[in-house]
Amino acid sequence: MKFNIALLAGDGIGPEVIDQAVKVSDAVAKKFGHEITWKPALTGAAAIDAVGEPYPDSTHEVCAAADAVLFGAIGHPKYDNDPSAPVRPEQGLLKMRKKLGLFANVRPTFTFPSLLDKSPLKKERIEGTDLVFLRELTGGIYFGEKGRRDGGETAFDNCVYTRAEVQRLAKKGFELAMTRSKKLCCVDKANVLETSRLWRETVQAMEKDYPEVEVSYEFVDAVAMRLVQWPNSYDVLITENLFGDILTDEASVISGSMGLMPSASMGSDIALFEPIHGSYPQATGLNIANPMATVLSAAMMFETAFNLPEEGKAIRDAVNKALAEGVVTEDLADGGKSFGTKEVGDWLAANI
Amino acid sequence: MKFNIALLAGDGIGPEVIDQAVKVSDAVAKKFGHEITWKPALTGAAAIDAVGEPYPDSTHEVCAAADAVLFGAIGHPKYDNDPSAPVRPEQGLLKMRKKLGLFANVRPTFTFPSLLDKSPLKKERIEGTDLVFLRELTGGIYFGEKGRRDGGETAFDNCVYTRAEVQRLAKKGFELAMTRSKKLCCVDKANVLETSRLWRETVQAMEKDYPEVEVSYEFVDAVAMRLVQWPNSYDVLITENLFGDILTDEASVISGSMGLMPSASMGSDIALFEPIHGSYPQATGLNIANPMATVLSAAMMFETAFNLPEEGKAIRDAVNKALAEGVVTEDLADGGKSFGTKEVGDWLAANI
Ligand SMILES: CC(C)[C@H](C(=O)O)[C@@H](O)C(=O)O
Ligand SMILES: CC(C)[C@H](C(=O)O)[C@@H](O)C(=O)O
Repeated sequence: MKFNIALLAGDGIGPEVIDQAVKVSDAVAKKFGHEITWKPALTGAAAIDAVGEPYPDSTHEVCAAADAVLFGAIGHPKYDNDPSAPVRPEQGLLKMRKKLGLFANVRPTFTFPSLLDKSPLKKERIEGTDLVFLRELTGGIYFGEKGRRDGGETAFDNCVYTRAEVQRLAKKGFELAMTRSKKLCCVDKANVLETSRLWRETVQAMEKDYPEVEVSYEFVDAVAMRLVQWPNSYDVLITENLFGDILTDEASVISGSMGLMPSASMGSDIALFEPIHGSYPQATGLNIANPMATVLSAAMMFETAFNLPEEGKAIRDAVNKALAEGVVTEDLADGGKSFGTKEVGDWLAANI
Repeated sequence: MKFNIALLAGDGIGPEVIDQAVKVSDAVAKKFGHEITWKPALTGAAAIDAVGEPYPDSTHEVCAAADAVLFGAIGHPKYDNDPSAPVRPEQGLLKMRKKLGLFANVRPTFTFPSLLDKSPLKKERIEGTDLVFLRELTGGIYFGEKGRRDGGETAFDNCVYTRAEVQRLAKKGFELAMTRSKKLCCVDKANVLETSRLWRETVQAMEKDYPEVEVSYEFVDAVAMRLVQWPNSYDVLITENLFGDILTDEASVISGSMGLMPSASMGSDIALFEPIHGSYPQATGLNIANPMATVLSAAMMFETAFNLPEEGKAIRDAVNKALAEGVVTEDLADGGKSFGTKEVGDWLAANI
């Protein structure tokens, strides 16, 4: 098969980890007889520096025309201290999500047996954890009307959801649950918020279409607790944008394998794949960043965007082998022998 | 001194734990020569059953006329499955907060050395944790306009904050930080929300009035992570209502001492004290509920509402002694000898 993949390396360690994912993807393509054409485009602080905005139209055109988007990381310290600066890398992220219609952010949290001791949680709490959040990504308070009144003395942010927005996200949740343990948790704050009540009633009405899926409803504050207490009691969780922002980040640290966690953002036409970690500006250019989360994001891309599970598995197997044999960057080396970003990428590509 | 204290026992285990706090407070009053008049009033499901609403005017009058409010817990399973039921215990809670003007919820999370192994976190992560959240409690998305449009197909919740609301909460935060390690963290989502930008600029403008306080600004998603990774890196945190709801609950489970955590909700005129745990309906009447969180809430009442630190310390000392001597309910007994709710209360009162 032939694929055009938009390549948005972004800022900080983005370009370095993206390079390894490209290398590994090319090795997979070669092995399985596919042809990938990479289409690099600017985003983040790099795009602000070059053309004055973080998600320029030229980049959007590349993404919209591609079969998938592979994304590194964005964010630069020079934009950190003034959240109200007129142009910020994050705005590019939000614009990209909206314009590409990426309404479902898929955030798995799973454990690697060899890394359990990296978790801040006790081993017996974290063992066997394998959950996936589906976070709504193009609605809610992120995109509602916002502004000031009373000469700036009053600020407001409006949170809005339509039934159709909830349905399309929930549908993905039910479908994902059917391929897993058939357990779905709808996370809301229906005891306080009207949007949450819409979420809950919409999901409740969909239950009859998926009679095998066991659905539970939990308040966001209760989930924030149970994620730390018994993360392995969850399987698929669906939630709105802001709750998802908070809870997926909370979930990412419990596994102790944050540097390895991939993610996908899916729409009706196109999907984007990226590591969950940030741009770690301090590590830029040092060849120390862990490329595995980005490499595993490429695995998700083969599996979900191209429907090629064998290709994805080849990547996952290589990563597991690298972990088993200690071919890891310093964050996972426990003071022992470690490898550079590039060397880990080379090893993975050679072991496809 | 003479005090009138409104006593809102509420639902489930509320009445049982409240009884112990009354007993212990009376022992303190006796020892230090104070006189307490308890003013019981209905709230929660108990009030709905009796008079059809969860925070009746009669209860409000009792609270408004009191020197402080001691609160048990509310919530009953018969209201659990329908978050849109017209009358729910939680609505009483929100009405009470608003009508009493309880704008600052004070939620400490601290550790008891003898209970560290109860934490889901590894010992070295949790040791020494002693942080306090100040959660804004009468504004934000909880109280903004909410409703439906388009024949019910679209739902909205408006989040609104005024500068004055942020200022009065932040002022309490700065003042609290001055009595502690002089570190204050403002938690927001200023990279996305206009209300968060108002929070941040308001707190930034107050920094000059507290030159000794070192202020940091963190995004809510980052705090959700670091609370699990390095809870002991925080001291005083201030945040808006919804973020506070999620993060204070998350923080409460990391200590492993959730059954012991007290809280206060403060306004300009009156303050309310309550354990952070819920009404645990399954334990109702079994004399097994841990009364220590409520007893420690009474300690906070003496300290902060009545400005009587010695009296508060007498209670804390008794609780520490009970923990050291194993006079605990079954949740803390590790399968060993345990005591009933009432017996723990009696022991604490006798040891004042
Ligand atoms: C950078 C920020 C706008 C973004 C978000 O809140 O969605 C980030 O936290 C994320 O989760 O991707
Ligand atoms: C019951 C609910 C309305 C309430 C809240 O969200 O404030 C509770 O979770 C709390 O934190 O006291």
